[in-house]
Amino acid sequence: MKKALEDLIVLDLGQIYNGPYCSLMLAFQGAKVIKVEPLNGENLRVRRKGDCHELLMLNSNKLGISLDLKSPEGKAVFLELVKKADVLVENFSLGAMDRLGLGYDVLNKINPQLIYATGKGYGLDGPYADRPAMDLTIQAMGGVMATTGFADKPPVKAGPALCDFLGGIHLFGGITTALYQREKTGKGQLVEVSMHDAIYPTLASALGAYYSQGGKVSQRTGNQHSGMATAPYNVYPTEDGYIAILCVADRQWQSLLRVMKKEELLEDERFQTNIDRSANTYLVDEIVTSWTSGKKKMDIADMLIKANVPHAPVQSIDEVAEDPHLKQRGMIREIVHPKEGKIKVPGSPIRLSDSVLEDVIPAPMIGQHTDQVLQELLGFNEEKLNHLRDNNIIRSIETMKQ
Amino acid sequence: MKKALEDLIVLDLGQIYNGPYCSLMLAFQGAKVIKVEPLNGENLRVRRKGDCHELLMLNSNKLGISLDLKSPEGKAVFLELVKKADVLVENFSLGAMDRLGLGYDVLNKINPQLIYATGKGYGLDGPYADRPAMDLTIQAMGGVMATTGFADKPPVKAGPALCDFLGGIHLFGGITTALYQREKTGKGQLVEVSMHDAIYPTLASALGAYYSQGGKVSQRTGNQHSGMATAPYNVYPTEDGYIAILCVADRQWQSLLRVMKKEELLEDERFQTNIDRSANTYLVDEIVTSWTSGKKKMDIADMLIKANVPHAPVQSIDEVAEDPHLKQRGMIREIVHPKEGKIKVPGSPIRLSDSVLEDVIPAPMIGQHTDQVLQELLGFNEEKLNHLRDNNIIRSIETMKQ
Repeated sequence: MKKALEDLIVLDLGQIYNGPYCSLMLAFQGAKVIKVEPLNGENLRVRRKGDCHELLMLNSNKLGISLDLKSPEGKAVFLELVKKADVLVENFSLGAMDRLGLGYDVLNKINPQLIYATGKGYGLDGPYADRPAMDLTIQAMGGVMATTGFADKPPVKAGPALCDFLGGIHLFGGITTALYQREKTGKGQLVEVSMHDAIYPTLASALGAYYSQGGKVSQRTGNQHSGMATAPYNVYPTEDGYIAILCVADRQWQSLLRVMKKEELLEDERFQTNIDRSANTYLVDEIVTSWTSGKKKMDIADMLIKANVPHAPVQSIDEVAEDPHLKQRGMIREIVHPKEGKIKVPGSPIRLSDSVLEDVIPAPMIGQHTDQVLQELLGFNEEKLNHLRDNNIIRSIETMKQ
Repeated sequence: MKKALEDLIVLDLGQIYNGPYCSLMLAFQGAKVIKVEPLNGENLRVRRKGDCHELLMLNSNKLGISLDLKSPEGKAVFLELVKKADVLVENFSLGAMDRLGLGYDVLNKINPQLIYATGKGYGLDGPYADRPAMDLTIQAMGGVMATTGFADKPPVKAGPALCDFLGGIHLFGGITTALYQREKTGKGQLVEVSMHDAIYPTLASALGAYYSQGGKVSQRTGNQHSGMATAPYNVYPTEDGYIAILCVADRQWQSLLRVMKKEELLEDERFQTNIDRSANTYLVDEIVTSWTSGKKKMDIADMLIKANVPHAPVQSIDEVAEDPHLKQRGMIREIVHPKEGKIKVPGSPIRLSDSVLEDVIPAPMIGQHTDQVLQELLGFNEEKLNHLRDNNIIRSIETMKQ
């Protein structure tokens, strides 16, 4: 079965999380993604000794080449690749590609069909454009921290690198949109995503509360609803951890009351509708807490599954890493890496019925496919490869030859 | 200038955040998105009195029709629309569309070109598939809470509704990928995204730390790096709030030392490399804190801009809502809603150079375009519309006639 993006060639200059996640999604849909790294590898290679697990998670199903883009000869090789490519992905800091002489204007002239995708912290323009930006700074600037944590504690970041990943997946969506448009126009274009832009809509609940209160800033709500517009909606203590419980429909609240054996509250006017309950959030939370405390979280979960009340145990990282649901769905996959042995890497959250993801292939080592790619795509012979290698323009993998 | 997705018709059954954000992105790229709501409107209409701001944020540039999908006649009207549509988006609970007789198998027979996009909490299969799922429960189950907050406080959710939005934007990427594939095959297909799947890769840092420590679960790291693999990397107290500061390169640390007038530490072997600094995180944090405390956050920001050290002030929601950068980039837009007056809504984080988003049109009121859409797409006459309206099969807007 042919995959959605088969026959497309992607030059992936991505580093750390943002760009690499974008191109991972392209690879999973069948594109031939060529990860282009400097001779010492991308920045994520060196986070810990050896290839860190994060890199292995986000670079499956890619070919890896290693090339010095700062040398004139390396640049010339890269420009030959650009002529063959459909898509380029990069998430360097602002202006880095221009300084290399590889900006959109240059590459678009060489290959007008190229879709040039740029993932940035603050985007290509605007007053903050040239500030250094990483997940942490965007969480601070973008309102994630302001809305995360408890009112009596400092603002706190979200644990996941959500700015990087939101940026990366928006970039993927922009690329596929541009690929569709290219089918109509025959032309490539510039696709731009700013992580800072991508965060703004996700604050819908907090912004909704802000505007509905005429511009009053609410305190951080901990695990309560960011707009304080749903109750119960919280994380409740149990004997062995925590459990999240919420009721978005009145029937769920009635069902919860029955499970808690609090039928006497069914007619209580303080709790009839969600608006009533939200006005009495702290009382609602007290009632639920008095029931969850002293019970085991999985016992509570079993009761709530039967009662059809939305809930979930708060899972720890080791529970997530071994989650039976994620495994059964192929979202957590065990593969064998030639150096690292058995590792667990993600499958694809985007499932197309006609482009099923069957095999996940380990991330390339630095320069693993340099020779192969330059031979196949550009027809370089052994002599040319030796010349480039001997002059430190390219790096081919040594470990594979052992 | 023609937009990327112009001429495409999208039936948007989305509700709350996940589906509506996906179809908002389709609308911003030029698709004709028809928001199909029950006679009383989708669930988000009733969160607060009047149309809540969240709904207005996520339903710009859509046409709104109101139709009773539970009635045989309403279903028949919907099936006529399906014949004309390119894409259907839905994020109901598992099985809801099948119970309506509008599942993928049925609609694919009626229109084999249709791309049927389904956003789910836990996906279409697997052991958790039929559990109720919302942003909060996925944050609990998926590891967001486990990795968010301080070690000495309970796990806490991320403030933004990141599961809803990550799910929605992956779904958008899946749809545009399927649109590209349809250009090659002429066929539609099923696109599925589970929020729970979409969260897993975003835990890269925490999972990296977990695997690099041989399966040891770390404590929550507050504002420190989730993998404790970068230092400085934290949120530091100032006289008037907090500021995030991090150094990913040694030269940034050296630059920060100079700004802090701590040149005597330039040669200190405890802080030479990122690996050294990470091993002395608490000491690094103490040094930076002693410098930030007692200064104003914007004064510190000014110094760090000049020194090229990655940082950002922790902005409150009102600061985010009036952010000059987001405004200048057209990410925050002020538009005039016929009932609500001036409101602020998002632009598009996905920027295509050939499909610039010029106008943002307010979200439809319930049934605002029912008559228009049924006339234009299905050729219904006044008599037919009156019949459907009188029998409560459709709802047309009344307020617009006043």
